Amino acid sequence: MPAGTLLYAQSGGVTAVINATASAVLQAARARKVRVLAARNGILGALREDLIDASALSAAEVKGLAHTPGGAFGSCRLKLKSLADDRAKYERLLEVFRAHDVRWFLYNGGNDSADTALKVSQLAAEFGYPLTCVGVPKTIDNDLAVTDCCPGFGSAAKYTAVSVRECALDVAAMAETSTKVFVYEAMGRHAGWLAAAAGLAGEGKDDAPHIILFPERPFDEADFLARVDAVVKRVGWCVVVASEGIRTADGTFVADAGGGKDSFGHTQLGGVASHLAGRVKDALGHKVHWALPDYLQRSARHLASQTDLDQAMAVGRAAVECALAGQNAVMPVIVRDGDAPYRWHVDIAPLARIANHEKTMPKGFIRKDGYGITAAARRYLSPLVAGEAFPPFGRDGLPNYVTPVMTSVPRRLPAWRG
Amino acid sequence: MPAGTLLYAQSGGVTAVINATASAVLQAARARKVRVLAARNGILGALREDLIDASALSAAEVKGLAHTPGGAFGSCRLKLKSLADDRAKYERLLEVFRAHDVRWFLYNGGNDSADTALKVSQLAAEFGYPLTCVGVPKTIDNDLAVTDCCPGFGSAAKYTAVSVRECALDVAAMAETSTKVFVYEAMGRHAGWLAAAAGLAGEGKDDAPHIILFPERPFDEADFLARVDAVVKRVGWCVVVASEGIRTADGTFVADAGGGKDSFGHTQLGGVASHLAGRVKDALGHKVHWALPDYLQRSARHLASQTDLDQAMAVGRAAVECALAGQNAVMPVIVRDGDAPYRWHVDIAPLARIANHEKTMPKGFIRKDGYGITAAARRYLSPLVAGEAFPPFGRDGLPNYVTPVMTSVPRRLPAWRG
Repeated sequence: MPAGTLLYAQSGGVTAVINATASAVLQAARARKVRVLAARNGILGALREDLIDASALSAAEVKGLAHTPGGAFGSCRLKLKSLADDRAKYERLLEVFRAHDVRWFLYNGGNDSADTALKVSQLAAEFGYPLTCVGVPKTIDNDLAVTDCCPGFGSAAKYTAVSVRECALDVAAMAETSTKVFVYEAMGRHAGWLAAAAGLAGEGKDDAPHIILFPERPFDEADFLARVDAVVKRVGWCVVVASEGIRTADGTFVADAGGGKDSFGHTQLGGVASHLAGRVKDALGHKVHWALPDYLQRSARHLASQTDLDQAMAVGRAAVECALAGQNAVMPVIVRDGDAPYRWHVDIAPLARIANHEKTMPKGFIRKDGYGITAAARRYLSPLVAGEAFPPFGRDGLPNYVTPVMTSVPRRLPAWRG
Repeated sequence: MPAGTLLYAQSGGVTAVINATASAVLQAARARKVRVLAARNGILGALREDLIDASALSAAEVKGLAHTPGGAFGSCRLKLKSLADDRAKYERLLEVFRAHDVRWFLYNGGNDSADTALKVSQLAAEFGYPLTCVGVPKTIDNDLAVTDCCPGFGSAAKYTAVSVRECALDVAAMAETSTKVFVYEAMGRHAGWLAAAAGLAGEGKDDAPHIILFPERPFDEADFLARVDAVVKRVGWCVVVASEGIRTADGTFVADAGGGKDSFGHTQLGGVASHLAGRVKDALGHKVHWALPDYLQRSARHLASQTDLDQAMAVGRAAVECALAGQNAVMPVIVRDGDAPYRWHVDIAPLARIANHEKTMPKGFIRKDGYGITAAARRYLSPLVAGEAFPPFGRDGLPNYVTPVMTSVPRRLPAWRG
């Protein structure tokens, strides 16, 4: 057994397959006889010295994590600032690492986490503490630089495309006397990847979704409403997919246009779909419905993509191998070798090329009129949602998700006063 | 081949398995060599003489319908009034039936459709026109009388329970620094069956969903908020499932409390989840998210229950047999023969016992405190979501739903001026 401990932490919004990455990390570490601790609730657990003995998980629990959504060890949204601004926190992390002989730190998250892992590695070098920091990619937003795609995205994309295909059949059946316009709100504050994935639901000119709204394009209400009306006139009904992050030309988030006060003066929580539905109703008079899947889209492990699951596990395994090989301040990334047939492999990229970057949709993926995806986008997206990876279901008809027993590691340091 | 034609029509909100019923109807009719027409967009197509030659569907299309959500022939929300008030419409129906030699009428819907089918049969008898009318049960609301459960409900219930189990894992992972309260809005204007099904997602006292709000119980905001806060304090987070139809003690729909105007004077579409989320935020200060799956919950064929699919097909077959046997003004219903193991069979009930009745949750299914389900409810619900009936998926990762070619039947009557 190599000397030292590997610390694994989950960061930011969870995905349908981040636990599959955790499962792969634990399996790879077991194969190499490396002890693994997990930070409870992400970096917060590391700061608080709130650590879980992940090596104590049973083989069945480790295997079960691969088909369990959510973040089994807990995640958090704490973003560390620069080394100068948050120096005490970074130093505390090193103190905890030292106390538990952590020699390898795997941080499973997005841009911010890549940045944190990079800074921790820099401070460790400054202090002469032997630490290898490896970022492990994860985000349904698919907005990480360098990697061709992000584990977590493919499954959320599959959920989106399937859901839109299904509700479109519903709307089509009822449009004559009921809802004519349906608005589906997809996650994606800055990048329209998930909304784009909805485009896979249909192929023909009049297939749903008829209109996709991307944060990469300014939202023009009059043009949008005219298009909705034209689709209703031509097709009889219209399905709209809107990214939560769409903005008008002056930079205002459309979601913020709603969300005022109701008639009792209570906060009225809005959102893009609700707002657009209201505008369609007011301006066009069509009966409208909308859906806000919210967390359902990032936790729908029952509809995970096999490609996504494979990649989530591959980056977990690769991260352990990188770390044990001493490849510091890097992240395993997905490289695409071909579209049809789809081929990919894992490469290793420096965190410095990934930290704090954000990859939006390339211009060539958005149709010229701004309301749909191109053939190039289809070629990119399609393999990412391919393959089904259903979880095991119990006799009760529900997925057998696991809740591993978490054994806390005794603290060795005074409590953190962060 | 028996003389005469069988007319099949879909009515009201669609389900994940109403097309499976249609598939079974077509298969049974083929086996008996009976010609089948389908009304386009439900009863509206019958009034307009807008009929589809369903016997022209290919065997592959008929088979494919069994795994395709939506309403393949179109549905509608047109409710016929009493014979006296809507006599012209009923007479027109008979005129169309006569013109196409329709001897058997299968109407696939809920309470209203049962009522319409009953009235059509009464008028036919009055006119001496030989017609057998059979209702075929369908509704995700599960609110039909007599039948133990309604085809369409089991699949929507499974979607609800799985979705709530999945998003609960998401909330649990992030609650420390992010969302503490999550509100899921389930369909059910008058009956809380779907919200109740969410209760299957967890079993222990502190498992999600922590709070279920039923339309069968008056909503008390102060009590609700106190319970949410108590759960957050005890568990760290709270998942709420709310029926869209909950009302305060004075009968006001909670959904109508929201939905005012936004800061621009635009209609702000509300809903129960949005409203409750706003109240939690204002009154308790917890970070809150909510989901409104809307049509997704009734079209999620990818997550259909095998029990539900079996029953949807069984009532379709039974309806054809009833009709051909001349059993008039009846509906095939599901009879439960046992809970564990679950056993059921199809029986035939008079439409008069079903038309316009509405079955809400029995008192014994709602926990005494009003915020959860009882063991009896679990025994009832659990078998209905059992078994997976995944549709076939293509190599592109999406379900292979079918869109049959619909051949219109030439009109034989002057246009309807309804």
